[in-house]
Amino acid sequence: MTMDLALVGIGKIARDQHIPALSRSPDFRLAAVASRNAELGGVASFRSLAELLEARPDIPAVSLATPPQVRFDDARRAILAGRHVMLEKPPGKTLSEVEELARLARARGVTLFATWHSRHAAAVGPARDWLAGREIRAVDIAWLEDVRQWHPGQEWIWQPGGLGVFDPGINALSVLSAILPDPVHLAEAELEFPENRATPIAARLVFSHPAGIPVTARFDWREAGPPRWQIVIDTDQGRAVLDRGGAVLRLGPRVLAEGPDSEYPALYARFAALIARSESEVDLSPMRHVADAFLIGRHVATARFDW
Amino acid sequence: MTMDLALVGIGKIARDQHIPALSRSPDFRLAAVASRNAELGGVASFRSLAELLEARPDIPAVSLATPPQVRFDDARRAILAGRHVMLEKPPGKTLSEVEELARLARARGVTLFATWHSRHAAAVGPARDWLAGREIRAVDIAWLEDVRQWHPGQEWIWQPGGLGVFDPGINALSVLSAILPDPVHLAEAELEFPENRATPIAARLVFSHPAGIPVTARFDWREAGPPRWQIVIDTDQGRAVLDRGGAVLRLGPRVLAEGPDSEYPALYARFAALIARSESEVDLSPMRHVADAFLIGRHVATARFDW
Repeated sequence: MTMDLALVGIGKIARDQHIPALSRSPDFRLAAVASRNAELGGVASFRSLAELLEARPDIPAVSLATPPQVRFDDARRAILAGRHVMLEKPPGKTLSEVEELARLARARGVTLFATWHSRHAAAVGPARDWLAGREIRAVDIAWLEDVRQWHPGQEWIWQPGGLGVFDPGINALSVLSAILPDPVHLAEAELEFPENRATPIAARLVFSHPAGIPVTARFDWREAGPPRWQIVIDTDQGRAVLDRGGAVLRLGPRVLAEGPDSEYPALYARFAALIARSESEVDLSPMRHVADAFLIGRHVATARFDW
Repeated sequence: MTMDLALVGIGKIARDQHIPALSRSPDFRLAAVASRNAELGGVASFRSLAELLEARPDIPAVSLATPPQVRFDDARRAILAGRHVMLEKPPGKTLSEVEELARLARARGVTLFATWHSRHAAAVGPARDWLAGREIRAVDIAWLEDVRQWHPGQEWIWQPGGLGVFDPGINALSVLSAILPDPVHLAEAELEFPENRATPIAARLVFSHPAGIPVTARFDWREAGPPRWQIVIDTDQGRAVLDRGGAVLRLGPRVLAEGPDSEYPALYARFAALIARSESEVDLSPMRHVADAFLIGRHVATARFDW
């Protein structure tokens, strides 16, 4: 059976991912949208979520694709109105506010789903399974892209709570914690801040692994040309590369797993399954790593950034 | 019955608080210490916790009073050796590592106690009870002290993970979350970093409260003269002041509660009670607020700091 869903925030990620995924979803029907500036042809459009919730008590599920800095108030409002809520990543501006949303959802008896879309990339599950039987010797993440290409004009990424280069970087960290058998924690970090911006444009991270295996990461928004979203894992059976953001897993020249992009369809399928089971899923570990990086990271000033 | 306990780290906080508290504890006997540089007369002394654990399998409890940057390895070692562990505040360098310790303690079946000593100040419990029946209208924290007087020569507070002025400020946040009936989360922060230091010397915080009540905090290490460790709470029944770090609660000129300093004796009593009940207590909410402040806080450069 199809459930009506309201989408909040009609920006780049909504148009690139949420709306196409919903148009093919066997579980949800896009019944209404809320956006300050945009409307969507053929779908009931509201100026705010408050108006939408008031006018449409019949819509049981809400998906929030607004920037993280403004997501808490809407999420709280929807939960208190008894709706199931799905959050784009990162799930909020602070860790504490997401903990609070999780508490409210429990108290109200609704589903809260904090999504990490990269975990649903085609080769992530196969990578986890393949690594489970191997001895891991080193892990190195390179998550390099051109901010002008991938976040054109998105001022919110440079504002406090926008995470800067950790906005893509957190995708890598969400994959890392999904494929490694053992948990890691941050040991050292260096963050490069453009002198005119409040969030970092690049970062280097060193993690501590219980077996002493080197685990490192480099995030950079100054990469010209095609992006590199890659996790390189040295094992006792050779070098595995989880590439293209998790879409393909290679061992040397051999492709072990590969598939089309179906991250957002997978998220909506999972949201429907969680609602059906009256469960929530709020894993804060990727965002905790990011907060830890800001907490212990050395700040380095770098050249100003202008679009 | 008295339980043998080992103390790790013989610095200022150990000499000022842990050792005097243990000397009067009905629950614990200080049986050994581990310290790279110091010994303690009349007590078995070791150069490292690893040596101590090896030599003294008979000591069931370990208290860690080392700086947070080096606490994880010792805590992990002690837990894996089957000992109950008590952590000085803040409980670690990162949130993720403390989550990991909590997981390890559960798996190993030992008690882990992440302490917040200020919560055991004499007037904190009375303040919580008094506030429970009142309408709160505003909360303002001032936590101002002279770093040269209260942290003389402690270089670790200026190093990544040392938290800077949040080292005392986290005490205020631990009290705040213990006395307010409703949870708050950070909305805005400004952090002042001396140009030659990696951690802040001052901070201003603005929290978001579910009822829209203003909740603010100011931490500053540049306060000359006596410290001010104060939470001012405006209520429908007047202005309450929780003063002297939680030692006294006043309503206007009237003292509602006051008591001698027995924070560390209370911590050890609670550690013993947790061990007796085979429970752990790891509340990360004060440290989460600090990580959130670094995550969303604007950095402001300020004058260099030298001892």
